[in-house]
Amino acid sequence: MKNRAIYFISDRTAITAETLGQSLMTQFEGIELERHMIPFIDTAEKALNIQAIINQSSQDNDAKSVVFSTFTDDKIAEIVRESDCIFYDFFNDYVVKMEHDLHQESAHIVGKSHGIGDESSYEARIRAVNYALVNDDGGRLDHYQQADVILVGVSRTGKTPTSLFLALQYGIFTANFPITDSDLDNAYLPKALKPYKKKLFGLTIAADQLRRIREERRPGSPYASMRQCQREISQVEELFLQENIPFLNVTSISIEEIAANIRLARQLDVKQF
Amino acid sequence: MKNRAIYFISDRTAITAETLGQSLMTQFEGIELERHMIPFIDTAEKALNIQAIINQSSQDNDAKSVVFSTFTDDKIAEIVRESDCIFYDFFNDYVVKMEHDLHQESAHIVGKSHGIGDESSYEARIRAVNYALVNDDGGRLDHYQQADVILVGVSRTGKTPTSLFLALQYGIFTANFPITDSDLDNAYLPKALKPYKKKLFGLTIAADQLRRIREERRPGSPYASMRQCQREISQVEELFLQENIPFLNVTSISIEEIAANIRLARQLDVKQF
Repeated sequence: MKNRAIYFISDRTAITAETLGQSLMTQFEGIELERHMIPFIDTAEKALNIQAIINQSSQDNDAKSVVFSTFTDDKIAEIVRESDCIFYDFFNDYVVKMEHDLHQESAHIVGKSHGIGDESSYEARIRAVNYALVNDDGGRLDHYQQADVILVGVSRTGKTPTSLFLALQYGIFTANFPITDSDLDNAYLPKALKPYKKKLFGLTIAADQLRRIREERRPGSPYASMRQCQREISQVEELFLQENIPFLNVTSISIEEIAANIRLARQLDVKQF
Repeated sequence: MKNRAIYFISDRTAITAETLGQSLMTQFEGIELERHMIPFIDTAEKALNIQAIINQSSQDNDAKSVVFSTFTDDKIAEIVRESDCIFYDFFNDYVVKMEHDLHQESAHIVGKSHGIGDESSYEARIRAVNYALVNDDGGRLDHYQQADVILVGVSRTGKTPTSLFLALQYGIFTANFPITDSDLDNAYLPKALKPYKKKLFGLTIAADQLRRIREERRPGSPYASMRQCQREISQVEELFLQENIPFLNVTSISIEEIAANIRLARQLDVKQF
């Protein structure tokens, strides 16, 4: 097994470098990785320091370090590129191609990508987080007019993290509402939700995973029993079908995938940040 | 001004395509954009549908649509590439380069990037979100042993969204604690925080922005007055300096930038998801 150091480097947050770099590295197995995120390399001096660090790790591992980067300043990129490493610069590679394809010069502006950019978009996200917190777990019933989507499901199916992710990442106003035993017994959509059926999206999960999650929370309780979990899941899925609510089984998928499915089903397209 | 449709397309969530594609588009000004995120294009049939949609939008706009994509299946990528568009495939472009540079074949596995992958990492993020919620706004004082970082600052400086972002995005256990008037009058770090000084990180903000945010919450209150905001901000910055707590003025920076600064200052390096 080869040991390599992986660096995600940028003159800004390095988030884009990290996101794509991590994705790419998942395609190469059997490399023991040591990963470092290095944001804000925005002077020649800092770049020279990083150069020394990269060189050292390549030597220590006896394998070239891999650098994924997004630099907007060519001179700084050049310094890092000269390290003893395998160097990828997502920004420059594509910006050059795009200038050609779009017949247009790029702005070469540092930090537009994850800068606050449009101030209103920052505030939109913060507002969406506040909205998600206030409207978590059926906390308020009189704000659904403002909701972009309302997640529904039985207890412990990931409604809260999903709501927060949609809010933080995309500024989507997301409420969530727990479907309880008595709703299920009545096979009845809670009254507060009826006028907003077009905004609903259901989450379900495998009964044994639900059992495990609930067991952690309230060990040995009827709430966490396999029988109870199975019953709730099968009833809630029936309810979703009967009420024509799109839903997703979240058992082995990530928050990103859940969010992408919800955006797709509820046509919450790309907001322009 | 040219109108172009921009597509972020993938056989999985399209998040990576969106992240890098949006970053790149910020470098090209004066293009009026219409953006679409299209996840889960994982069959030839779906790809052919998309091809038709792209062709139509290129024709309607009288300008080639731009496609940013991350396909793991070459055949599906090929169908989309054949549309009337400017086509970028981040995955294939780099995977091919990397196979060469690393002297290793890629796994070509669909969805490893944003799939649940390592199940424990998914649960780590959910746990971190639960931790952040329970430990929001000084909610608990007896869990700080588990914290990776504790955000401190006066009311309305973005502690909650930042905590949730660190938790959701990176699985970082983040608590936050409000610094109150009486703490400031005493120029004194709250007692509960003293044993954890190495975990603290301060947030501050321009007084007039703080005033505006507080004004929205409690219009006309002394709490939202300019004088009060100025006083709190100057006192809290003094406290941070005196106690040697690293801090950041978040006035015109994004959550991503705030998070990157905190990870850097508190050495919360890349977790392996």
